[in-house]
Amino acid sequence: MVTTGRSDCPINLTAELLGDRWSLIILRDIIFGDRRRFRVLLSESEEGIASNILAARLRDMVEEGLLTRSEDASHRQKVVYSLTQSAIEFLPTMISMGAWANKNRQANPILGPWFAYLYQQGPRVWEELADDLRHRHLGGPSPKPSAATMKSLAADYRRQLSSSSGPVASRARAR
Amino acid sequence: MVTTGRSDCPINLTAELLGDRWSLIILRDIIFGDRRRFRVLLSESEEGIASNILAARLRDMVEEGLLTRSEDASHRQKVVYSLTQSAIEFLPTMISMGAWANKNRQANPILGPWFAYLYQQGPRVWEELADDLRHRHLGGPSPKPSAATMKSLAADYRRQLSSSSGPVASRARAR
Repeated sequence: MVTTGRSDCPINLTAELLGDRWSLIILRDIIFGDRRRFRVLLSESEEGIASNILAARLRDMVEEGLLTRSEDASHRQKVVYSLTQSAIEFLPTMISMGAWANKNRQANPILGPWFAYLYQQGPRVWEELADDLRHRHLGGPSPKPSAATMKSLAADYRRQLSSSSGPVASRARAR
Repeated sequence: MVTTGRSDCPINLTAELLGDRWSLIILRDIIFGDRRRFRVLLSESEEGIASNILAARLRDMVEEGLLTRSEDASHRQKVVYSLTQSAIEFLPTMISMGAWANKNRQANPILGPWFAYLYQQGPRVWEELADDLRHRHLGGPSPKPSAATMKSLAADYRRQLSSSSGPVASRARAR
């Protein structure tokens, strides 16, 4: 997360931000896993993030304007992290990354095609997913009932997985 | 470029690949700058990559299947690097990253809107750009004259920049 100021090329700026892969992993867990508390981010981490690294990265990400930190109104001691607009706008990059790994790496046979499915939806639907995140993290307006949400797409994807003829299912099985 | 095998989540796999930001910078210089020789990658580096780091990352990227290395037929001693299909498929992620930095970081006022412009073109045009790269790096078929290429889009973008009413130009000037 250290900005070195080596150049103002947009790719370099994003690469510097992602210099530490843990930041990206934490962003993934908040965006796709709706994990917004320290304990949950720590205990459910697939990659086994260490407690001190999680604490340091969360602090960095708040400083970099990717997350905000607030106390839960109902549980005074519990801190909740929210995505900022800037972090939410990272969603298309994240979806592209996942779709790339599905094609080019030995990705998980359920999660890989899930990202490919999200990528196939295209920019219009990604914007609807961003609206859904803005609603849940920034108090933005409720998405229209017809708009795609992370939940509705996951349900569609599961339906495709379980139907024998779905293209996603056959791709997942083929792996 | 070290794959730790911590998880097979597609985001984690891509994050591990990009763990070293220099790999992404080199990929950018080859994809967008058409720099395919060691000397050119070294001497034209905006970020001032060190010679030993460039050599190590090029070696890693060949090993990871992102680049191939071949001797130029006309200059026996000169080595040329080519993108693999896997690297070319990284283009949409790269474009999304650049568009993100344009909106969310203090990106270069010409290059930032250039990536925003590429992002606005959407997946169909990104695929045409990938065909153009496949033609130049993998000996794929020549793109149709009507298809977008990195060159044709750059020319369109420059025209918009110099026309006083272009949306890209006004955005670039506003920065």
